[in-house]
Amino acid sequence: MSNETNRSDGRTGVWFVGARGSVATTTVVGALAVHAGLAEHTGMVSELPEVSAARLTGIDRLVFGGHEVAEGSLAKRAEELRAGGVLPPAVVAAVAEELAAVDARVAPGVPPGSVSQRAATGRIEADLRAFRDEHELDRVIVVDVSSTEPPVADDPALNDLDRLEAALDDGGAPLPGSSAYAYAAFRAGCPYVAFTPSPGPRPPALAELAERQRLPWAGSDAKTGETLVKTVLAPMFAMRALKVRSWSSVNLLGGGDGQTLADPVNAASKTATKAHGLEEILGHRVDGPLHIDYVPDLGDWKTAWDMISFEGFLGTRMSMQFTWSGCDSALAAPLVLDLVRLVARAHERGEYGPVPELGFFFKDPAGAGGHDLSGQWDRLVEWCARDTR
Amino acid sequence: MSNETNRSDGRTGVWFVGARGSVATTTVVGALAVHAGLAEHTGMVSELPEVSAARLTGIDRLVFGGHEVAEGSLAKRAEELRAGGVLPPAVVAAVAEELAAVDARVAPGVPPGSVSQRAATGRIEADLRAFRDEHELDRVIVVDVSSTEPPVADDPALNDLDRLEAALDDGGAPLPGSSAYAYAAFRAGCPYVAFTPSPGPRPPALAELAERQRLPWAGSDAKTGETLVKTVLAPMFAMRALKVRSWSSVNLLGGGDGQTLADPVNAASKTATKAHGLEEILGHRVDGPLHIDYVPDLGDWKTAWDMISFEGFLGTRMSMQFTWSGCDSALAAPLVLDLVRLVARAHERGEYGPVPELGFFFKDPAGAGGHDLSGQWDRLVEWCARDTR
Amino acid sequence: MSNETNRSDGRTGVWFVGARGSVATTTVVGALAVHAGLAEHTGMVSELPEVSAARLTGIDRLVFGGHEVAEGSLAKRAEELRAGGVLPPAVVAAVAEELAAVDARVAPGVPPGSVSQRAATGRIEADLRAFRDEHELDRVIVVDVSSTEPPVADDPALNDLDRLEAALDDGGAPLPGSSAYAYAAFRAGCPYVAFTPSPGPRPPALAELAERQRLPWAGSDAKTGETLVKTVLAPMFAMRALKVRSWSSVNLLGGGDGQTLADPVNAASKTATKAHGLEEILGHRVDGPLHIDYVPDLGDWKTAWDMISFEGFLGTRMSMQFTWSGCDSALAAPLVLDLVRLVARAHERGEYGPVPELGFFFKDPAGAGGHDLSGQWDRLVEWCARDTR
Amino acid sequence: MSNETNRSDGRTGVWFVGARGSVATTTVVGALAVHAGLAEHTGMVSELPEVSAARLTGIDRLVFGGHEVAEGSLAKRAEELRAGGVLPPAVVAAVAEELAAVDARVAPGVPPGSVSQRAATGRIEADLRAFRDEHELDRVIVVDVSSTEPPVADDPALNDLDRLEAALDDGGAPLPGSSAYAYAAFRAGCPYVAFTPSPGPRPPALAELAERQRLPWAGSDAKTGETLVKTVLAPMFAMRALKVRSWSSVNLLGGGDGQTLADPVNAASKTATKAHGLEEILGHRVDGPLHIDYVPDLGDWKTAWDMISFEGFLGTRMSMQFTWSGCDSALAAPLVLDLVRLVARAHERGEYGPVPELGFFFKDPAGAGGHDLSGQWDRLVEWCARDTR
Repeated sequence: MSNETNRSDGRTGVWFVGARGSVATTTVVGALAVHAGLAEHTGMVSELPEVSAARLTGIDRLVFGGHEVAEGSLAKRAEELRAGGVLPPAVVAAVAEELAAVDARVAPGVPPGSVSQRAATGRIEADLRAFRDEHELDRVIVVDVSSTEPPVADDPALNDLDRLEAALDDGGAPLPGSSAYAYAAFRAGCPYVAFTPSPGPRPPALAELAERQRLPWAGSDAKTGETLVKTVLAPMFAMRALKVRSWSSVNLLGGGDGQTLADPVNAASKTATKAHGLEEILGHRVDGPLHIDYVPDLGDWKTAWDMISFEGFLGTRMSMQFTWSGCDSALAAPLVLDLVRLVARAHERGEYGPVPELGFFFKDPAGAGGHDLSGQWDRLVEWCARDTR
Repeated sequence: MSNETNRSDGRTGVWFVGARGSVATTTVVGALAVHAGLAEHTGMVSELPEVSAARLTGIDRLVFGGHEVAEGSLAKRAEELRAGGVLPPAVVAAVAEELAAVDARVAPGVPPGSVSQRAATGRIEADLRAFRDEHELDRVIVVDVSSTEPPVADDPALNDLDRLEAALDDGGAPLPGSSAYAYAAFRAGCPYVAFTPSPGPRPPALAELAERQRLPWAGSDAKTGETLVKTVLAPMFAMRALKVRSWSSVNLLGGGDGQTLADPVNAASKTATKAHGLEEILGHRVDGPLHIDYVPDLGDWKTAWDMISFEGFLGTRMSMQFTWSGCDSALAAPLVLDLVRLVARAHERGEYGPVPELGFFFKDPAGAGGHDLSGQWDRLVEWCARDTR
Repeated sequence: MSNETNRSDGRTGVWFVGARGSVATTTVVGALAVHAGLAEHTGMVSELPEVSAARLTGIDRLVFGGHEVAEGSLAKRAEELRAGGVLPPAVVAAVAEELAAVDARVAPGVPPGSVSQRAATGRIEADLRAFRDEHELDRVIVVDVSSTEPPVADDPALNDLDRLEAALDDGGAPLPGSSAYAYAAFRAGCPYVAFTPSPGPRPPALAELAERQRLPWAGSDAKTGETLVKTVLAPMFAMRALKVRSWSSVNLLGGGDGQTLADPVNAASKTATKAHGLEEILGHRVDGPLHIDYVPDLGDWKTAWDMISFEGFLGTRMSMQFTWSGCDSALAAPLVLDLVRLVARAHERGEYGPVPELGFFFKDPAGAGGHDLSGQWDRLVEWCARDTR
Repeated sequence: MSNETNRSDGRTGVWFVGARGSVATTTVVGALAVHAGLAEHTGMVSELPEVSAARLTGIDRLVFGGHEVAEGSLAKRAEELRAGGVLPPAVVAAVAEELAAVDARVAPGVPPGSVSQRAATGRIEADLRAFRDEHELDRVIVVDVSSTEPPVADDPALNDLDRLEAALDDGGAPLPGSSAYAYAAFRAGCPYVAFTPSPGPRPPALAELAERQRLPWAGSDAKTGETLVKTVLAPMFAMRALKVRSWSSVNLLGGGDGQTLADPVNAASKTATKAHGLEEILGHRVDGPLHIDYVPDLGDWKTAWDMISFEGFLGTRMSMQFTWSGCDSALAAPLVLDLVRLVARAHERGEYGPVPELGFFFKDPAGAGGHDLSGQWDRLVEWCARDTR
């Protein structure tokens, strides 16, 4: 790992919302394995020289914890991921003890409706402060890797921080679950990563809170697979002046996320953010369905098929199709580590608000700046290089 | 078309080597159709605002001619391309008269071995000068769109201009066919576009001649389809730190080029330039075959299949595959027009030698600068913008 | 064509429901072209020796007519199909005159609700009788190639012929549109082909009427593309004892049928018949979505993608995927000719009720006998051979 | 398992040529696992009711042994197959002891050229007799699962048994390696399964020996994956009168067989048998390449891509493509068990010579009877049913 000596010696907390899900479990097992020299950095953008130039905190300086509403244990989920071919057996066995130590730091989530939202967010905030204090952490990054929520309804309390505070004081519950976590995180002074398409820190009242607290955040909805491919293919067609006429997408997946997304209400968040990029890059509306289907049999492996019909010189009709067969958790986990390290660095630098230079990682990048992967990469690299000039 | 008023009113000649092949025919028919308002600019990079910023010559200012060794006529080839679904019937009918006028400007090629190479290149040079004079052209761009030749053997006369001249004076024939054309073009003061992987202007002696004559040239081997896709997908894997383990490619094509490439000796040029980019972008050797197969039944439509096996976090194995179904001539023709306009502009600006900023168009870019399409695009746009600052 | 001498000299009428749709138009143009020697028999099962053994009526002995509710003309639709690349320009031009003669025999359909259903079916019946008489036809085969209707609700009048007659006499309108045509056809003594998944002759009351009138019929829902492939691949997995775990299907299509099927209510008929076969062949339920999407850009060309996940020895997980790119009208039209000839032969032989041996052609075969294409072929060939023994 | 009571209680030997290769190892581990109730019969055709009707010997009555020229052990190869994801870890662990017992019965192969071919075949014959005697086996089936050999040159000694014997007596070595095994097997009274495309029992002199010894044999070249699919898709096109214009096939594989087949001389056997079926089924020559490529990265997983271009009614051009991702050893092993049981049954019944009813299993079926999988299945089922009538 580069620049070891320039980095602060302090430790960074990583607090998962959804701490025993596939992504969190793979992230923790992976971080332990990489630290122990049992696995390589494959898939970790933050280990590429252009990005590690930002003098990021070491994997070995990360301390994991989180909230989880579901029963179970990290060990049990790791075993399921091993059986499903996601985690190598030898690695799971080797990190068992440390994994149990992380599991001991997982607190029960606050079930929605059990107490007032004011009380619930207060309890989350307290958990975050306790975690930071107990482990003497420089900072704690909260990462939402829980199940996707439906898009947020237009509640006026979400558009203005003062109104939000008033609504909470009045015993109201205007916050979607993910935003309740973002609210508590910002109140506790914690930067935030919206890894899913859930609303989280996106409503204006939350963004305002982050500004006021001078906290950076990044989101939303990590682009791990099929959408990633779209954001390099669409610019190719644009750069070559080829007219994309239709782009049809099918995603088959069987993991926990698949089940959530089988409900069209929840999927609405996802299909919206997946569709954004394409039309923004191409500059016009594009026909074609976008399906997300739950096929339990496929487990954590996602298969996506895209069919692109396009037109060339003299109206000639041509097509391209691709199939992506990826393991969602294995694609997501290293990006979680990347984002934690990069958001921690932004915090250290005193940046706040959405970090637009992290758009590289997201389907619906907060802040600014386009969906084209190459352009996003250039902005990320430029941001990382600031430290070295 | 932008910047109409800033452009010179003069006309630019386009001289094809292989003037009645599919690419040349589609280019001429297309240019006539676009000029007549019968077709849009789809597929023409030079009509995108970032590129047209370079104040390029108008399509209507191009005058076409060329050499052709084969029998036939542009009308006959256009009819074949219409039957094969490449050219729209209405367009072919509408431009018939002008097409015949172009055909009248096609001169018989010099069959190899018929006269000494000194005499042959002299005759080509004279044809080029006559074309320029007769039509009062500001400049003539020579574009090689003839069949792919085998890679050039290492002949010392090709490494040094003086030795080359001496060899020609001695009655030798050291030049491959495509390089004989490049030699004559440069002697006649014509910029050159190496649209195919044939050696053309690449041997050092030829490059030296271009320098001496202060002529720009561009090459080699236009990336029209499957390789184009590779040069956006490979950077995606690299930017995401995903380890590409194997990349297998199959190209099925039935046109005239397919037949030439069915001969492994000729295909060697092609497979070499196709493979270059991938390993350069990824930074390491990659396993997997690269096939080019002649399947007459497919005509001008090329189907390519690529299978990419890659590794992610914790060694997880994943894969991606794509199928590209494109019409080669329809993809190539607008790029010919782009290159003619851009090389003409370079000549007008007084640039000479290989134009590295045109690497965007080629599988084996001459000059410098990487295979990653986005990086190539950035350099092209920057080059085009020089005029507007 | 075999057995010319054994065939009756009489002529057979073909009466289309949906006479100016893509399928009817392609069928008529194709029959005229084949008869005129302008096209081969490709795609016509009834010209294979095993099937023509049934001494089928000649293509030249078919007389076309039909009902159509939409405006327009066969010539106009043929022109659209030509522009869409379905019909060859030369063929359309060559048969123009005869096509106009067929068009003159197309009667306006009876718009639903304009008169009582008793009156409407009476008018259809009269049209059929008039067509048969005027052209001195041996028989008239009615073929439903109109847009797919939603599945039929469970109306008691459809389950019993006497109740149906009583309901019609009472001014009721219990018949779905397609079944009104089947009712009229059977009353007029005409065999019927249910080429679409619409109810047509399937309700018990209609089937009863066919029995009573001693009329043969065939249906439902011609298997032209992706489902056809399924019915050879599924038996392969079964014969090899490989366990299919999920089978996901996506159909993208842009023609008129696509638009109808974009409405999930109409699509219900289609997705139901498409799914039948798979589970019947495999003998167990199979996970996976079945989508039919309307992508206008694709026109008459349908692209289907299927992803099959299966398990082998020792639980090893494997997969197969296929993409089918077919032109629906070109696949359907020759099957219409096949079915007309075969149903006419059944009528001539005195067979009545659903003809199970024609299951080879359908997604939801009426009568009996499995979905496995090879088994269906064996039964068809056996049925055809009866005449030669 | 059906018909347990009707089966003889005797035991059947299975003697592998290539006893520690992937296929043999997977077969032995799988048979032990199935017998121990650790795995299901998935992939075993002989457990389908239509086939088990032949009263086949039980899996538990098989005794394994074999020859192997390479170093190593079954345990070591099983471990490699486990690491490659072919064998489940729990199964490998559970059968370790019995696997070691089988390994103890593996004899060193006779390296070619070490002794005269007469002596070498004598030694093999002696090994087979000793195996049968020692374990008191009813019969021993020899199964060639060793690496593919090049096609056999036309040696007159291979065309006539008397000349072969004379050549061996004269110290000649006319037999290819696989045929030396077949020769020894037949001399020892053992039926033979040619699981690979190697010559084995195919030369006339060997076939003659089998007849003389009244021994049944089956072959050649098991169809496990891509070719299997071809033999159901090609009949589909034929039954629908669709004209296949080109069929291009690419096979990427990384296992031991892949390495052997990377040598075009060895691959010649394979590509020849793979191509046979297609043209026989379609009844005409079909364009298109057939590649087998060694991609080490893919291990035992084979990915095949096929692209089929076909023509329908009125000359409309359409296409279909498929990708097959299969694990070769997992597909092959259950077929080895099927063939051993079926050939043993043929021997028990007194049948001899090639068993044409086993064509279902092979790319190049010996004896007679077509490549269409459904037809082959019908013949197999009919053969199996003979016992129950």
